[in-house]
Amino acid sequence: MAVGLHDFPFIPEIKGIRIGVAEAGIKRPNKKDVVIFELCEDASVAGVFTQNAFCAAPVRICQQHLGLSGSRYLLINTGNANAGTGKLGLATALKTCEFLADQTGVNVEAILPFSTGVIGEPLPVDKIIAAIPAALGNLSANNWHSAGIGIMTTDTLPKGSIRTFEFEGKTYSIAGISKGAGMIRPNMATMLGYVCSDIAMEVSVLQSILKDVVNKSFNRITIDSDTSTNDSCIAVATGMAGNVKITSVDEPLAQAFIVAFTEVMQELAHAIVRDGEGATKFVTVEVVGAAMQSDATKTAFEIAHSPLVKTALFASDPNWGRILAVVGRAGVQNLDVDKVQLHINGFEVARNGGRSPDYLEEHGKQAMAPQEIHIVLDLGMGEESDVVWTTDFSHEYVTINAEYRT
Amino acid sequence: MAVGLHDFPFIPEIKGIRIGVAEAGIKRPNKKDVVIFELCEDASVAGVFTQNAFCAAPVRICQQHLGLSGSRYLLINTGNANAGTGKLGLATALKTCEFLADQTGVNVEAILPFSTGVIGEPLPVDKIIAAIPAALGNLSANNWHSAGIGIMTTDTLPKGSIRTFEFEGKTYSIAGISKGAGMIRPNMATMLGYVCSDIAMEVSVLQSILKDVVNKSFNRITIDSDTSTNDSCIAVATGMAGNVKITSVDEPLAQAFIVAFTEVMQELAHAIVRDGEGATKFVTVEVVGAAMQSDATKTAFEIAHSPLVKTALFASDPNWGRILAVVGRAGVQNLDVDKVQLHINGFEVARNGGRSPDYLEEHGKQAMAPQEIHIVLDLGMGEESDVVWTTDFSHEYVTINAEYRT
Repeated sequence: MAVGLHDFPFIPEIKGIRIGVAEAGIKRPNKKDVVIFELCEDASVAGVFTQNAFCAAPVRICQQHLGLSGSRYLLINTGNANAGTGKLGLATALKTCEFLADQTGVNVEAILPFSTGVIGEPLPVDKIIAAIPAALGNLSANNWHSAGIGIMTTDTLPKGSIRTFEFEGKTYSIAGISKGAGMIRPNMATMLGYVCSDIAMEVSVLQSILKDVVNKSFNRITIDSDTSTNDSCIAVATGMAGNVKITSVDEPLAQAFIVAFTEVMQELAHAIVRDGEGATKFVTVEVVGAAMQSDATKTAFEIAHSPLVKTALFASDPNWGRILAVVGRAGVQNLDVDKVQLHINGFEVARNGGRSPDYLEEHGKQAMAPQEIHIVLDLGMGEESDVVWTTDFSHEYVTINAEYRT
Repeated sequence: MAVGLHDFPFIPEIKGIRIGVAEAGIKRPNKKDVVIFELCEDASVAGVFTQNAFCAAPVRICQQHLGLSGSRYLLINTGNANAGTGKLGLATALKTCEFLADQTGVNVEAILPFSTGVIGEPLPVDKIIAAIPAALGNLSANNWHSAGIGIMTTDTLPKGSIRTFEFEGKTYSIAGISKGAGMIRPNMATMLGYVCSDIAMEVSVLQSILKDVVNKSFNRITIDSDTSTNDSCIAVATGMAGNVKITSVDEPLAQAFIVAFTEVMQELAHAIVRDGEGATKFVTVEVVGAAMQSDATKTAFEIAHSPLVKTALFASDPNWGRILAVVGRAGVQNLDVDKVQLHINGFEVARNGGRSPDYLEEHGKQAMAPQEIHIVLDLGMGEESDVVWTTDFSHEYVTINAEYRT
């Protein structure tokens, strides 16, 4: 029951990228569950990873390998997260990297591993190794849709995005895929995102842009407030577009790239929310008028995480009292409740710490009826703001999460 | 579907306390919805109130009046929270206090008002005032059970507790009632607790004890992480037992009181969890081995708030991976995942950051089957600990919170 999630777009070749997909039968047969990205030599690769202290084995190895330059392959499996697996987990992840390195004649450090799926089960190394030759044989520039399907776990639809932009007569492309339907699933972990461009850009610049844009996209979505052990987001700049390599974020081309890159990243992040567990609403929570950005951020997340707000959204109930109660406990210093204003889908619902004088219950019902809900909470304290995207909280969410293993 | 909630106990007279109950028809007819506690002269009264910045009008007035000594009446109504009502709310709350003061010949500052119920609707002053004479006419030392019913909103059962203890040949009694079935209900706000003893104790000592014990009882329960606008807990010491007035927490009699008082407060707090919205489990989350108590507290609350842990509890699913993932994101400084150990109802489930070597799925299923679940998470870092009590997260929770107003 994905909310307003468009079909997977047509993604043409991104020069310097080939993708291969195979069926390893890790969790069930006839499911594409191994995906390999082949990156051209000298591609710049940046990554952002989960902050969870229990980060999974592949995340640790991936971070180590990324620190050494020269990444050539991304090796992704679904069906098993290789998380909560201790030292054995590190050994098994490394083993799959070594096999792929052998097969392709690169150093093992050139392989970046990613796993998503059940937590706490040993990685089925043999199955993955057995599928790697098939994935390599399948390498093609036109496999983006297959890759989108190949990284799915409990997602109901594959998620992709593509943008092109012109700059001084040259065309640049940015394409990406993502997966995830909660920050963490019932034993099915992980948000994953892979975004590739043909632009030429220093790694340090790409890393800096990726970090910033993740904070406006993947780090601003929440289904159920949990952070997975495997969350990873990778950006690749192959350099095949032929521009002079970007060495600073301040270059005009870098700025043009950031605009398009942000669109791709937000679309991929929103797709995860739209496909959220049991989602019936796509909800934008915008907090404005904050004295500090951190106040806006935490207030937006507190609203987005509140089970009472989320169940009211599910019921299309304009329950402004619940939203104000959350704001009141969000820990904003010197909050003056008399200055707080609340709009839902353009209707003023509350002001001065209470219901708006002109508010009618019909307005609230009308405001809450659509699948897309835009909440704007004005703290009335300053100029800072932030935005978070989330879903409602439905019976289906409980069903999915309670009954997954039973 | 309350979990292991015992019947309301027989509560005998607490000398110096009389209680009157009446039907004001605030929200619906034939419901006891106004409760008055009459306290003897010179009773010591202490209070702890919601930290929510959007605290309700009666909470503000109650705090003001409590600061001035000489409280003689607690005036409680259900059906309307008088929250989110701005300046009008303060005026209406004060009006009910003034009426009761007139009727009883005390100063208005001797009245402490409390409201619970729908947020954002004007308090029906006339209905409350009309019911006050009937409540005063009903004053009796033996109305504890009626009072327990009178303060209920969406609670399924009244909640009471009684303890007596002996000290140097004298018997002391402590009795209390509480209400609440979430920290905040769908427009039905509030946790309320009233605990009275016949002991003689200075207000400052009672206030200090109340604050400490609230942190081991009402402030350690959570249904859905939301704090209401009206939460209040009041302790009264009438002094009728005839002991020499306690002037220090360090007196042996004060220490004996604290033991029994803590039992009453915890029983009343647990009762709220046991009657939690849609609860099918009563869950104790104990975090031990922390370097600082704040680490233990925040980790316990993060576990208790995680929708994924709560849905797994609902499913009786021994999903230890979800618990470890929460611990990993709880923000404990210098967490060494290899030292973390997890027990559920006595079974060792995880150690060294992964599943215990001896763990079998059958153990987990056996551990999770009972209605009462005790989770012990050892961080392996030090000697500090804390305990939080919570419920699971069921379909019924979504139903109650989504469908309340529709």
